[in-house]
Amino acid sequence: MAMVKMIEHAAAAPEVRAVFDDIMATRKTDWVNNFWKVLATHPPTLRRIWDNAKQVMAPGALDPLVKEMIYIAVSVTNNCEYCIHSHTAAARAKGMTDLQLAELLAVVGLANETNRLANGYRIPVDPQFVPDHR
Amino acid sequence: MAMVKMIEHAAAAPEVRAVFDDIMATRKTDWVNNFWKVLATHPPTLRRIWDNAKQVMAPGALDPLVKEMIYIAVSVTNNCEYCIHSHTAAARAKGMTDLQLAELLAVVGLANETNRLANGYRIPVDPQFVPDHR
Amino acid sequence: MAMVKMIEHAAAAPEVRAVFDDIMATRKTDWVNNFWKVLATHPPTLRRIWDNAKQVMAPGALDPLVKEMIYIAVSVTNNCEYCIHSHTAAARAKGMTDLQLAELLAVVGLANETNRLANGYRIPVDPQFVPDHR
Amino acid sequence: MAMVKMIEHAAAAPEVRAVFDDIMATRKTDWVNNFWKVLATHPPTLRRIWDNAKQVMAPGALDPLVKEMIYIAVSVTNNCEYCIHSHTAAARAKGMTDLQLAELLAVVGLANETNRLANGYRIPVDPQFVPDHR
Amino acid sequence: MAMVKMIEHAAAAPEVRAVFDDIMATRKTDWVNNFWKVLATHPPTLRRIWDNAKQVMAPGALDPLVKEMIYIAVSVTNNCEYCIHSHTAAARAKGMTDLQLAELLAVVGLANETNRLANGYRIPVDPQFVPDHR
Amino acid sequence: MAMVKMIEHAAAAPEVRAVFDDIMATRKTDWVNNFWKVLATHPPTLRRIWDNAKQVMAPGALDPLVKEMIYIAVSVTNNCEYCIHSHTAAARAKGMTDLQLAELLAVVGLANETNRLANGYRIPVDPQFVPDHR
Repeated sequence: MAMVKMIEHAAAAPEVRAVFDDIMATRKTDWVNNFWKVLATHPPTLRRIWDNAKQVMAPGALDPLVKEMIYIAVSVTNNCEYCIHSHTAAARAKGMTDLQLAELLAVVGLANETNRLANGYRIPVDPQFVPDHR
Repeated sequence: MAMVKMIEHAAAAPEVRAVFDDIMATRKTDWVNNFWKVLATHPPTLRRIWDNAKQVMAPGALDPLVKEMIYIAVSVTNNCEYCIHSHTAAARAKGMTDLQLAELLAVVGLANETNRLANGYRIPVDPQFVPDHR
Repeated sequence: MAMVKMIEHAAAAPEVRAVFDDIMATRKTDWVNNFWKVLATHPPTLRRIWDNAKQVMAPGALDPLVKEMIYIAVSVTNNCEYCIHSHTAAARAKGMTDLQLAELLAVVGLANETNRLANGYRIPVDPQFVPDHR
Repeated sequence: MAMVKMIEHAAAAPEVRAVFDDIMATRKTDWVNNFWKVLATHPPTLRRIWDNAKQVMAPGALDPLVKEMIYIAVSVTNNCEYCIHSHTAAARAKGMTDLQLAELLAVVGLANETNRLANGYRIPVDPQFVPDHR
Repeated sequence: MAMVKMIEHAAAAPEVRAVFDDIMATRKTDWVNNFWKVLATHPPTLRRIWDNAKQVMAPGALDPLVKEMIYIAVSVTNNCEYCIHSHTAAARAKGMTDLQLAELLAVVGLANETNRLANGYRIPVDPQFVPDHR
Repeated sequence: MAMVKMIEHAAAAPEVRAVFDDIMATRKTDWVNNFWKVLATHPPTLRRIWDNAKQVMAPGALDPLVKEMIYIAVSVTNNCEYCIHSHTAAARAKGMTDLQLAELLAVVGLANETNRLANGYRIPVDPQFVPDHR
């Protein structure tokens, strides 16, 4: 049960409905997922987060599937159940295979492990890795 | 200052030197970074972690640059300074541009934000996102 | 299902019952929530954590509602389901509105995002921000 | 050393300079901190994050000092050194006393502790805490 | 519902069945838990993670029960529900009492608290704590 | 540089000096580390945290070295530099060897890895692991 009552399309104020419609048009779907129905309870947040997501997740120097996999990597590290489900579904819709998911999660696991080995041993950064902007 | 005294190649026991040599051969470099010099203080860990990294980071269903970017996404989320530096350098050596780094970090930032909106509002997972394995 | 069997008031030893009674008196309620019933399985922890909570959450230089909102900010960042529910309920009982909750979660989300931008780019701290205690 | 070379005001392109000028005007200061000079290397991120921060941190149902303290609570939980310094300085500029900082950090510490007690014991959420939106 | 369809022993390929059999023989049990049935969908990960776990969790300079308690401490800090349940069960099977669990969680809670006090106040490391390897 | 000016023994008020003296007596040392000198800026927090630490870290069902190693496991997972240094030094003073540290960090690393595999695949908890308190 969400902390607030979700807003459905039929009951939405015009400013909310405009965002819902843009989400469906951008994604070429005919439904809006719960994340947006919850944010709709605070329209400035709905508008702001959607504008952010639309800009950040658009094709650019990285392709959209790579962006979805990066999103999954963060969500798995933080253990956000909602986000793991929604972005794994999104990545699959963009073509991610079970094998790619397996490799993605293997990297996420390994990185979480070596992060702690580096932390625990307080390993000093090699000078070769430090950018030189002079 | 690391928690333990790092092992240099010249002073390494044969089992350690074998791993160091494999690292340099695999990466086509002539030096070994501090991470491995620290793990070399416990040879079973050095061998184990290197075998893991070699297997997980090899080309597969995901290309090595994508794997490095996933590694960065995790390391940034956890704020592991050593890992951020070493894997950003590795990604750049594999061709990552400043623009790709900017897009990668934008996704990492956004995912960390929306993870908390989903957490805080306790948003229920849409049934459409749940895999059906029947 | 909790890891241990919760202790109910009627079955509680005197040292546990004394804490339960103080919780209800302090909060002006007639029930004790599961958190304390679980801690009651180890009375020294029950006593210690209650004494801490009572001292830390009391009115002081910050008012109790602000303290509850800080508690929520931490719990959302860590994704502690129990704590998010219990402290959101507590904040609402102290007067937090839906609009305040929306603004709170917006700040929590943004902070989690910019934390990672600062981490990922390894942004150096401006000297103007460093306290000078000479 | 940041991952990218920071952009100074004098060398900034007009779109960057416009954001820098708005930051200084909004904050009534005559300098721009490193966070923005780094983001300026990717102007769409600079513009986007500044627009977000300006909207989210503006006075609203919560006052700006409370918002800064929530920001600190998140940054301390995540251990983002840059963010802890910049937002503690910002909160002090808005009037936060040493005593308020001490109480804030005491709540942050306690919440991080009880989050783990709730996690570790897998404490079930009391039905009284679950919102009822029927 | 897991992200992938779990592999049961009867339907497993020989390379998977070999790992399942080694897990049961090593643990002296007649069943395999879900963690391995899920990893079995990617046999190289199944083999790799099992080899890691077998090596790392074996008796050594630390006894197996201490290792299980360290595992719980990490899993509670990260709030991994599956891992908390599986490793608490494993620790109990190795003799952990309710009192030991209570003391373990008390330390985990306190450490999470003082970690944030140290972070928030940016406490400088005492020179006496820094190892000297000259 | 800490956020506040540390309090030295010679300049401490009686209530602070009493805690400092108890710390030194309990630990059989002749100095107080920075953590306590910083907390001394808010005497109620100094007293409260010291009382907690003294109670939680005392010998009990777990021995003090095991408690220190659990403390390290949490601090490494959270990447608290101060705490990693102070508790690794404390564990060494209680007899922890380099080999034990290596095994401890190996478990911490592995747990952080498998936590994410369990998260990412949303592995359902086996009924055998759930405590039955009926």
